Amino acid sequence: MITRRSILQHIGMAGGAAATFGAMEALGIAGNVAAAAPMPDLPAGFGKGRSVIVLGAGIAGLVAAYELQQAGFDVTVLEARDRVGGRNWTVRDGDRIVMDGEADQVARFSDGAYFNAGPARLPSFHHRILGYCGKLGVPLEVEINSSRSAFLMGQKGDKVRMRTAINDTRGHVAELLMKAVNQGALDQSLSAADKQALLPFLKTYGDLDATGHFAGTLRSGFQAFPDAGVGVFARPPAPMPLDRLLANEQLPAMLFEDNVYMQATMFQPVGGMDRIPAGFERALTRKVVRGADVTRIRNRPDGVEIAWRDTKTGAGRIARADFSVCTIPFPVLAKVDCDFAKPVAQAIAGVVYDHSNKVAFDSPRFWEQDQIYGGISFVGGETSLIWYPSAGLFSPRGMLLACYTSGERAEGFAKLPIADQVERARAAVERLHPGHGKDLINGVAVNWNKIPYSLGPWPNWFVGMAGHQEGDIDTEGYRLLCQPAGRTVFASAALSQTPGWQEGAVQSAHHAIAAIAGLQRADMGARPDRVAA
Amino acid sequence: MITRRSILQHIGMAGGAAATFGAMEALGIAGNVAAAAPMPDLPAGFGKGRSVIVLGAGIAGLVAAYELQQAGFDVTVLEARDRVGGRNWTVRDGDRIVMDGEADQVARFSDGAYFNAGPARLPSFHHRILGYCGKLGVPLEVEINSSRSAFLMGQKGDKVRMRTAINDTRGHVAELLMKAVNQGALDQSLSAADKQALLPFLKTYGDLDATGHFAGTLRSGFQAFPDAGVGVFARPPAPMPLDRLLANEQLPAMLFEDNVYMQATMFQPVGGMDRIPAGFERALTRKVVRGADVTRIRNRPDGVEIAWRDTKTGAGRIARADFSVCTIPFPVLAKVDCDFAKPVAQAIAGVVYDHSNKVAFDSPRFWEQDQIYGGISFVGGETSLIWYPSAGLFSPRGMLLACYTSGERAEGFAKLPIADQVERARAAVERLHPGHGKDLINGVAVNWNKIPYSLGPWPNWFVGMAGHQEGDIDTEGYRLLCQPAGRTVFASAALSQTPGWQEGAVQSAHHAIAAIAGLQRADMGARPDRVAA
Repeated sequence: MITRRSILQHIGMAGGAAATFGAMEALGIAGNVAAAAPMPDLPAGFGKGRSVIVLGAGIAGLVAAYELQQAGFDVTVLEARDRVGGRNWTVRDGDRIVMDGEADQVARFSDGAYFNAGPARLPSFHHRILGYCGKLGVPLEVEINSSRSAFLMGQKGDKVRMRTAINDTRGHVAELLMKAVNQGALDQSLSAADKQALLPFLKTYGDLDATGHFAGTLRSGFQAFPDAGVGVFARPPAPMPLDRLLANEQLPAMLFEDNVYMQATMFQPVGGMDRIPAGFERALTRKVVRGADVTRIRNRPDGVEIAWRDTKTGAGRIARADFSVCTIPFPVLAKVDCDFAKPVAQAIAGVVYDHSNKVAFDSPRFWEQDQIYGGISFVGGETSLIWYPSAGLFSPRGMLLACYTSGERAEGFAKLPIADQVERARAAVERLHPGHGKDLINGVAVNWNKIPYSLGPWPNWFVGMAGHQEGDIDTEGYRLLCQPAGRTVFASAALSQTPGWQEGAVQSAHHAIAAIAGLQRADMGARPDRVAA
Repeated sequence: MITRRSILQHIGMAGGAAATFGAMEALGIAGNVAAAAPMPDLPAGFGKGRSVIVLGAGIAGLVAAYELQQAGFDVTVLEARDRVGGRNWTVRDGDRIVMDGEADQVARFSDGAYFNAGPARLPSFHHRILGYCGKLGVPLEVEINSSRSAFLMGQKGDKVRMRTAINDTRGHVAELLMKAVNQGALDQSLSAADKQALLPFLKTYGDLDATGHFAGTLRSGFQAFPDAGVGVFARPPAPMPLDRLLANEQLPAMLFEDNVYMQATMFQPVGGMDRIPAGFERALTRKVVRGADVTRIRNRPDGVEIAWRDTKTGAGRIARADFSVCTIPFPVLAKVDCDFAKPVAQAIAGVVYDHSNKVAFDSPRFWEQDQIYGGISFVGGETSLIWYPSAGLFSPRGMLLACYTSGERAEGFAKLPIADQVERARAAVERLHPGHGKDLINGVAVNWNKIPYSLGPWPNWFVGMAGHQEGDIDTEGYRLLCQPAGRTVFASAALSQTPGWQEGAVQSAHHAIAAIAGLQRADMGARPDRVAA
């Protein structure tokens, strides 16, 4: 079969990278984000007469349930919590935040504000989850991931607006490079033609003056603001000196918006991220069984047997089906009585989860008075950032996210008493927005490692999302868990290269469906009497 | 009086630019966009017993009418068209586009799509027009001005995604500069400490490999897309060579999003830009008089006398008031019988207006299938850009803006037959999005120089908005028109440093109100019998 990939490989072998690049462009791939392999197209009735139990109603579980139902399977979803969504969790006024080892917190938000404690944005290229939003009637709006008015704040408290950081840095870089090129310092690397094209471009790139000097740019804002009449004429600000820009440890965060996962255009469901799981549940024929705490998993030759306890009544139950899709997070699954083969059990036990914290407040929108509408200020340290809401713009109050961290610094932060976490997040806001720390009320903290039935945000096979190579995930344990274990198939964003993203959960669910289809075909081969009509 | 400006001037004189910069930051100005002088605060009842006729119901006229009404004046607004808004004009399904010398066009849009033929975005720092939206209850949504999935297309048809243009260019620039720094080529410009800080930053800036080489970056997209399971692991695309990037004439358009007027976050009214004039009109006590074509303006010692003709009935009318605010575009006003002093009349006659064209189509949203949600592709030439709608994302069809130009190239384009304009805009879309030219239906063109009662988009004291210095507007004619002429005060975005922006119209209206207040105070001094109670 001739696929686009095979064409590319062919061309690449013949002509090297440059030839491949041209061909990719011709095929419309280059510079965009081509899709991974799609879900197998199961014929209608494929699952007729067969049953599946899905363990966990997070995104992976809901996608698997929805698609297997479409393929004709009889689907039961068991969910330990009293809500669907898993890590896709929107906290609203009156909601209770329950964490192991902590007193419960009750969220208080005014004006319909809400707090996406888990995922809070959808990139344009995550077309599978966006596709489900369309299919399920979940309205989306723009999530403003980047504002030129937001700040970078260094450890010493030096603040620079995003527009100044981006444009003054580029101004200095362009000036320095132009100087070097003009000196002939790069004649080994650049042809005369290159130089002729590069020099005028650098002038534009950095907004340099006629002499190639960076003397400040209106791209970084105004020293005097353009007005009507004849009083004041617009002037650019003086450039921020390069050494001062570089002394701000948060300067690299200006590149955040160019992280491919963070690039405009990004989206959020109108009204909260949990509108997605709610959409899936609407589409399921059989209601998700809530409060179903799985206690034992058995893989029999002809089916699975799941024991679970009703968290409301304490009653024990048994459910049976032909197959199971298990989306239970591995730190939780490791404590369940399972009959997986020893290497699988060891792989499950060996998955170490990361830490991740968020702290949210209810607040008047003082940042909008400062022309910050959405976007993120980066402050570093144990609270990392201040993320301004894209929901409810221009309304009086909103949810301000004053901490979002993962990795080592999150592990230490999560050990602090909740009250201290809240106060440290407030202090970071006060440092960046003096006088406004006191505006923040009803602070709540979510430490994902303490959330029952999650026990962490994602595996730390890459801690955090920055700097890793996606291929680093390809460990022995990961490979093993990507295979069916008896008649159970695992599905989770944890089994994708993007374990912090809902798209990874969807992709993993699609792989799980392919695996179930494989098991089903094997059954049909082995026992033709059970072939679906 | 100690103002922030006077403090800055003082510090600047004492300590030079660096001292000023630090002080500015301390005062919270630097890198942001400080406001121009606010409207004078008129005491309630200030205008009681006095009357004003506002000529023209564009943004300048509506702001003046609204504020003078608030101050107690009796306000009449005369508008020649059958709608309010002036250049703020939203074309919807069934609307007629009337242009001098052209057959009327009737717009046909499906799915509630609309076409903002005039202004179509509001920057975060245009706080006056944003403030009126809040005050008048005009809901706003995000206008997506920049998408990393949009394209730059050079004259030879070479296409590059915004994400590749931005990130591959930065990669090459960082590599070259690192090379020069490592060679010691910039030791005259950089201290050892500077170099120590700059080199690791450049590695991050360009996403360079350990040897300082730019070998491609995931910021520019994926060659292989991250998936679940173990089949494919994400790989960055090969870098686009620098000479190829520089050969694309549209490469500098990657900086468009850093034009201070174009920076995120930007907004648009939900449902069309004309929701703003509609909001103003709701707030006016007396309905705007439509179809009132002003034919004569007389300034008497004790008031103004305005003759106008009812465009429906042809009947001539006279209106009288103490003052007039004239917002009639200067090319239109130049043809009205006025009694302004000769230098003023000459100034009016001397204002030359720019050209500006837009071409819009109704279309299925094929661009969203290509992960382009809003934003702008730059194609150069006589159509310049393709602007994807921020309204109605994810719906089946929408309005695609396939041409927006001003300046010289717009002048030539506007001379083409309308059908040719539409076909050339379609051809540009076909070149960028092969196979989709035929998807575009119901094309309409707006040439602002042919629009009755506008006769152009804005004065060409700066043609277009790029590259000019705001101070360049400070001509003799501009200065003269910023003064009252008898009992008439001019107001228009044309009398601001940003004649293409609604904020300029608001600022000018605020200046006009200050001028009316001055005239009123002069009256009160001259004739105490007429002082308001």
